[in-house]
Amino acid sequence: MAELRKIISDAERVTNNETIIEQHSQDLTYHSPYPPEVVVYPKDKNEVHQVITFAYQHNVPIVPFGVGSSVEGHVIPIHGGISLDMTLMDKIVDIRPQEFSVKVQPGVTREQLNRKLKSYGLFFPVDPGANASIGGMVATNASGTNAVRYGTMNNQVLGLEVVLADGSLMKTGGISAKSSAGYHLTNLFIGSEGTLGVFTEIILKLYGIPEKTVSAKAVFSTVEQASETAVNIISAGLSIGRIELVDEHTITAVNAYRDTNFAEKPTLFLEFSGMEHWIEKDVALGKSLIEDFDCIDFVFESDPLKRTELWEARHQAVFAIQAKYPGQKPMSTDVCVPISVLPEAIENARKTISDNGIEGAIFGHVGDGNYHVVFMVDPQSQEEIERAEKINHDIVRFAIKNGGTCTGEHGIGIGKIDYLQEEQGSAYHLMKVIKHAIDSKNILNPGKIFN
Amino acid sequence: MAELRKIISDAERVTNNETIIEQHSQDLTYHSPYPPEVVVYPKDKNEVHQVITFAYQHNVPIVPFGVGSSVEGHVIPIHGGISLDMTLMDKIVDIRPQEFSVKVQPGVTREQLNRKLKSYGLFFPVDPGANASIGGMVATNASGTNAVRYGTMNNQVLGLEVVLADGSLMKTGGISAKSSAGYHLTNLFIGSEGTLGVFTEIILKLYGIPEKTVSAKAVFSTVEQASETAVNIISAGLSIGRIELVDEHTITAVNAYRDTNFAEKPTLFLEFSGMEHWIEKDVALGKSLIEDFDCIDFVFESDPLKRTELWEARHQAVFAIQAKYPGQKPMSTDVCVPISVLPEAIENARKTISDNGIEGAIFGHVGDGNYHVVFMVDPQSQEEIERAEKINHDIVRFAIKNGGTCTGEHGIGIGKIDYLQEEQGSAYHLMKVIKHAIDSKNILNPGKIFN
Ligand SMILES: Cc1cc2nc3c(=O)[nH]c(=O)nc-3n(C[C@H](O)[C@H](O)[C@H](O)COP(=O)(O)OP(=O)(O)OC[C@H]3O[C@@H](n4cnc5c(N)ncnc54)[C@H](O)[C@@H]3O)c2cc1C
Ligand SMILES: Cc1cc2nc3c(=O)[nH]c(=O)nc-3n(C[C@H](O)[C@H](O)[C@H](O)COP(=O)(O)OP(=O)(O)OC[C@H]3O[C@@H](n4cnc5c(N)ncnc54)[C@H](O)[C@@H]3O)c2cc1C
Repeated sequence: MAELRKIISDAERVTNNETIIEQHSQDLTYHSPYPPEVVVYPKDKNEVHQVITFAYQHNVPIVPFGVGSSVEGHVIPIHGGISLDMTLMDKIVDIRPQEFSVKVQPGVTREQLNRKLKSYGLFFPVDPGANASIGGMVATNASGTNAVRYGTMNNQVLGLEVVLADGSLMKTGGISAKSSAGYHLTNLFIGSEGTLGVFTEIILKLYGIPEKTVSAKAVFSTVEQASETAVNIISAGLSIGRIELVDEHTITAVNAYRDTNFAEKPTLFLEFSGMEHWIEKDVALGKSLIEDFDCIDFVFESDPLKRTELWEARHQAVFAIQAKYPGQKPMSTDVCVPISVLPEAIENARKTISDNGIEGAIFGHVGDGNYHVVFMVDPQSQEEIERAEKINHDIVRFAIKNGGTCTGEHGIGIGKIDYLQEEQGSAYHLMKVIKHAIDSKNILNPGKIFN
Repeated sequence: MAELRKIISDAERVTNNETIIEQHSQDLTYHSPYPPEVVVYPKDKNEVHQVITFAYQHNVPIVPFGVGSSVEGHVIPIHGGISLDMTLMDKIVDIRPQEFSVKVQPGVTREQLNRKLKSYGLFFPVDPGANASIGGMVATNASGTNAVRYGTMNNQVLGLEVVLADGSLMKTGGISAKSSAGYHLTNLFIGSEGTLGVFTEIILKLYGIPEKTVSAKAVFSTVEQASETAVNIISAGLSIGRIELVDEHTITAVNAYRDTNFAEKPTLFLEFSGMEHWIEKDVALGKSLIEDFDCIDFVFESDPLKRTELWEARHQAVFAIQAKYPGQKPMSTDVCVPISVLPEAIENARKTISDNGIEGAIFGHVGDGNYHVVFMVDPQSQEEIERAEKINHDIVRFAIKNGGTCTGEHGIGIGKIDYLQEEQGSAYHLMKVIKHAIDSKNILNPGKIFN
């Protein structure tokens, strides 16, 4: 700490205050906490450069920290060292409306960014449920409800400024719309979970806010019917912006948490968006398609306030479930399967849950074949954790066997290292080769992605 | 050769036949030829594995070869060795219409693929002017006229099977729509120009053929007016599928080459596509927008045959120019600039050309800020090459100074190594670190991307 305070003299920004240490030793999930020795809050790239140079010289682990909403133990400093909290680097540096791009510091949150962009008629589409930092979203290759239309973080980043393990500063990519100039380093850093470098600036693509947006809700008797309908809607070429599945358990939790009165049945939440003259007919076509699939009830919603309520309900699913089980913490599966396998995968998940006598809620981004099963577990009970892990295990195995992946959007962290190896085979070895070439001392978020 | 024939006994597939050697010693451009010692045509991944294992053991350079349409000397074996021609690996392995994906061998060409996909109502959108191989398109991160809607190869590849420098076989990615499982190795291999591995299988995303497509042509007095109009069209949120600029010199060449009679003025070629009920109004909105920008003539074309003629004319621009100058070979710039800079960049390019008293045609994918200036040079005349290089240099410098890149889609090869260094700074160094980590003997396409 004495050495670090020579770099950052402001005592509040180099701290081992107990509350702050505790906050940086855990995430929201069942993963066991472990404290960093010190939490550092850099204010600019030069401080990041100096702190990492110091850590490199002294072999001190560095764990970048955004807002800590990742769910696989990503930010837990399992080997101690420095938790590098990027919250104070929260400037929106340069908005270029004509280029549809923006340069931000990593601590900017997605809600902060979209509030700012609104007056330009622009928005940034990637929307994980939490109000995550852009740096954390890049580092986990986050996505969310808009991915079915706009893709994941992997499709949204034009360039990065990165501090490498030895403290050196580097830029990748740029502001032009495309480039074939050498290897795609930008994409290599996206999803690297703080193990290859610390982002100090990020250039993102932006999109025009669609002229017209209409949301809809389609209620079904079974989760399988809902997911089969989703598969068919996706094929139809309509201006679908979002298509989310929420099962009856999740709806029940949301109704209790937010005092809403959605029908407690498996439901698809949909959004159509685009030019005004596209939408009316697209909604009608979507509706008739959905009605072919034994939909019990279909309502649509163009009032902006009601639309917001609908999507906030969806976004708060995890918090709603958590509120039902005080003292317990969530474990979430995150498989993504080829979309034709989705109905069977969800049926299989539902069966796995009930065979194991555990309560689990199912919801997710079914337009991409990505869904979550969330269980609440008592983090003190090894038995409960093991049972939940067994279910997770069965669901992941089913996905991998059918050409899917163990993680559609959450990433590996410490929770999915074994699955990564199983899924990726010798590609896992090449990932390690690259990690070693770029961070030979293994000081950047050690123990994540790799053992 | 004797050793290689132990692996592949078929004499025609391991050859030093003079014509075949010559064909594999050059590309279509001004770059100086250099012959491989032998050309090998593998039929399956196992043969690729064995040939590369042999080359690894004996330090023999391997240069993968698709159809040889790349334009920066990519396929020229400047250090001799084996030209590994992938033409015979041309199977479409697995079409999954419901998943919107296909698995192909690398020698499949884009036209072959699209012919096959048509009956499924599907298509693959990336369309470089040449009928390139999918392997070559992955290796150069190709794009084309459809990129403004669908993105580049970097957005289209779900997974790869790759043979590494030591002969080992590896898979990246998979068939699910998204994944956060570790580093994005797939994206690292896209654009790697044969320097990191040889692709033996490729999984691509597919798209539904739009219900309705309308093409249009807008004629202007100046290239600057046309490019400014393009910038504004792009911002409007219409269902634009393509927007290409073709200058008067190019049109003149095309008219002579294809016996067409397009007005010999700077022209935007456009395409609107999507659901039928979107298009009519989108075209009308587009038309009124374009007319605000002093457009001389606007015609649209929904007849499929006439549409094809229009886009073939665009695609054959380079061949048309080449036909005007027998014995000469083309040099093409490929800068991509932030779109707001585009009109100024094109004005600057036009001025650079005329200041240097050379004839150059300008055309390109202006919706992405990517355009080409093509000059024909006598490959025997050092003086002509130097003059063309000076112009290229000025155009690239302008792009880099304004936040652009030296190559939007063609890649580095041997022609743009110096610019890559200038543009990428210390990222260039990291690219080299990765190359060394993955191909420490430097046997895969040595001398490309890096000196
Ligand atoms: C209720 C809830 C809903 C969620 N829904 C979704 C969802 O729909 N989709 C989805 O993808 N995720 C979802 N998540 C997970 C989470 O929000 C995402 O993983 C998010 O991207 C994490 O961002 P963060 O700022 O919290 O990062 P953190 O959790 O702080 O960090 C995540 C990782 O990024 C690294 N990191 C952070 N900043 C930097 C930086 N500047 N440079 C380098 N590395 C850095 C960290 O070291 C760590 O490895 C959800 C989480 C919750 C709690
Ligand atoms: C008239 C004309 C128009 C063009 N228009 C465009 C355009 O609009 N957009 C665009 O992007 N490009 C364009 N190009 C350039 C060219 O078509 C592209 O670069 C294309 O992607 C090259 O594909 P190919 O099969 O010819 O590859 P090749 O030229 O044979 O090889 C290109 C590179 O890929 C490597 N490679 C080939 N196969 C493999 C494999 N299986 N595994 C690993 N590496 C491999 C080679 O080693 C080489 O480095 C044009 C070229 C011409 C002649």
